[in-house]
Amino acid sequence: MRIFNFSAGPAVLPTTVLEQVRDELLDWHGRGMGIMEMSHRGKDFTGVLHEAEADLRDLMGIPSNYKVLFLQGGATQQFAQIPMNLLAGRSADYVVTGSWSKKAYKEAQHLGGVRLAGSTEASAFTCLPAANELKLDPQAAYLHLCTNETIHGVEMFDLPEVPAGVPVVADMSSHILSRPMDVSRYGLIYAGAQKNIGPAGLVIVIVREDLLGKASAITPSVMNFATMAEHDSMLNTPPTFGIYLAGLVFKNLKAQGGLAAVEQTNIAKAKRVYDAIDGSGGFYRNPVDAPCRSRMNVPFTLANPALDAEFLAEAAERRLEGLKGHKSVGGMRASIYNAMSLDGVEALVGLMQDFAARKA
Amino acid sequence: MRIFNFSAGPAVLPTTVLEQVRDELLDWHGRGMGIMEMSHRGKDFTGVLHEAEADLRDLMGIPSNYKVLFLQGGATQQFAQIPMNLLAGRSADYVVTGSWSKKAYKEAQHLGGVRLAGSTEASAFTCLPAANELKLDPQAAYLHLCTNETIHGVEMFDLPEVPAGVPVVADMSSHILSRPMDVSRYGLIYAGAQKNIGPAGLVIVIVREDLLGKASAITPSVMNFATMAEHDSMLNTPPTFGIYLAGLVFKNLKAQGGLAAVEQTNIAKAKRVYDAIDGSGGFYRNPVDAPCRSRMNVPFTLANPALDAEFLAEAAERRLEGLKGHKSVGGMRASIYNAMSLDGVEALVGLMQDFAARKA
Repeated sequence: MRIFNFSAGPAVLPTTVLEQVRDELLDWHGRGMGIMEMSHRGKDFTGVLHEAEADLRDLMGIPSNYKVLFLQGGATQQFAQIPMNLLAGRSADYVVTGSWSKKAYKEAQHLGGVRLAGSTEASAFTCLPAANELKLDPQAAYLHLCTNETIHGVEMFDLPEVPAGVPVVADMSSHILSRPMDVSRYGLIYAGAQKNIGPAGLVIVIVREDLLGKASAITPSVMNFATMAEHDSMLNTPPTFGIYLAGLVFKNLKAQGGLAAVEQTNIAKAKRVYDAIDGSGGFYRNPVDAPCRSRMNVPFTLANPALDAEFLAEAAERRLEGLKGHKSVGGMRASIYNAMSLDGVEALVGLMQDFAARKA
Repeated sequence: MRIFNFSAGPAVLPTTVLEQVRDELLDWHGRGMGIMEMSHRGKDFTGVLHEAEADLRDLMGIPSNYKVLFLQGGATQQFAQIPMNLLAGRSADYVVTGSWSKKAYKEAQHLGGVRLAGSTEASAFTCLPAANELKLDPQAAYLHLCTNETIHGVEMFDLPEVPAGVPVVADMSSHILSRPMDVSRYGLIYAGAQKNIGPAGLVIVIVREDLLGKASAITPSVMNFATMAEHDSMLNTPPTFGIYLAGLVFKNLKAQGGLAAVEQTNIAKAKRVYDAIDGSGGFYRNPVDAPCRSRMNVPFTLANPALDAEFLAEAAERRLEGLKGHKSVGGMRASIYNAMSLDGVEALVGLMQDFAARKA
């Protein structure tokens, strides 16, 4: 019996995808072995890789002048890998809107010139910077943003005005594939798999071709985007099982009608949770400015934190798991990624309303 | 119906392990979710991680002054990560005994002073260097060896005499866990998982504690061994599914009686294949010096390469897969890792003998 898993990541995966993975784990397509036992250079696995890429391109509308890379090391390794590849002796701008963009900014500082172009830390990462609060360098090698902050629950629905010629680099780990995005507005998009894509250990990088070929001399071969693009993400052995599973998730999203349809469901799910918070008369509270409330990660606190443990215990009784908030924020967090069903959201809202009615 | 998979890696995994993975894929230990959907910080996954480490320490007899790290990026990323962490402005010695140690040597050259301390390339990587052919620097930061060359089928059963105080760094990707090793003779051991451990996307590093803390300033946080050791391999999200599966493989090896028992089986398996080659009257040939023939990877050629395609077709009819040799060596290669059964080896030997009897 599957529970409702609200973990921030690694996170719930679609049950039908996992059923298919289970059914072909020891024998993929009658080959007498599982996909994870196959040579990555064989035509079966390269077929899986190319199909995953084609489906992702289709889903996201990735233009042909962008490369899609399937890499290892997660978004955290990208925090270093991106400046190694793109700085080229220049400076880059970072906007800090939560814990993850702050980590990206700190990691890049080891590797060259980086500038803090804006920060919302003074307001506890509950908003996005206003246009006049950003100090953007027109000469920057790139502008780095985290377009959904998993811990603070802040999502960017519009990009800031960016100086001409400065590519936007976006960490989309926790909301990629949750809605259509105009890829052509970005120089580079990256996302760890373990929220909306697949298992941990895979990170996807989508990069405009003109940004390739500028890596510093100390960049390891497997971390050089240009080298990896030349080798079809297979300079070394890729995380084959993760790529296979990601490919199944992409097919699952296409079968749902693509990202426009997925977005409608995500809007409905998020509205149910935020309405439950806002309609609780202050029993629950989400501190984020309404226009940038994340559709994927909904942190909320109970007005009386002494009730937190009881809330979590009742959640567990109803088979709702992973709701404890991040330690830096406290309270609760409901991560309602693509694979969280509306039924799961209704079960959470039901708990929230029942609990408040009894305890308020 | 499972076939016999002789792939060099990703490679065959134990059927009983895969059956367990299949059975708990959607619901691990009654938790209502799969292991790959669980938070890496929760007590279920951290329990899996710690048990995997404890079992590996037990199997290999890893002394307490060594750290065990579960990382991403494969051995190829380690080719850069090791000099980043250990060079500390000094020079390191590399012995080149095949394609993999050559790649390691080349990658390290980007990152600081490295010396070629010996090479068997002139004899086409069919032997190991004699003691008097090694020019070892007593001041080297470390001596790098690849103790089993997957492509050339050359295995090191004895370590060379190493100057006092120079730690040995060994790439054991394709023979780790195939027999007992004295870990205390090494400063650092590393191994990509996709041969004897688990799925691709996981690499294990076993490092003596006194070698930690020397990383260069440009080392990304997730690539800094000391930082990763402090964070129990969880500075970022680790490849949780791969670690879980590796842990099941470790338990499987313990249930077989540990590495001493596993070694006896591997000796028997390798002897069957080499005997079939050597007893073929020249129909099959393995070029490697007898004392360093690998027990894990057995490359062999047919005296008449025009028969290669027919041999592979007959192999496929008998459900023996992955036997085509690496393009740089040609012919065939039988990778007979721990998870390849004696039955599989007998099936291969049967084919070799039948085929030779008809075609010789």
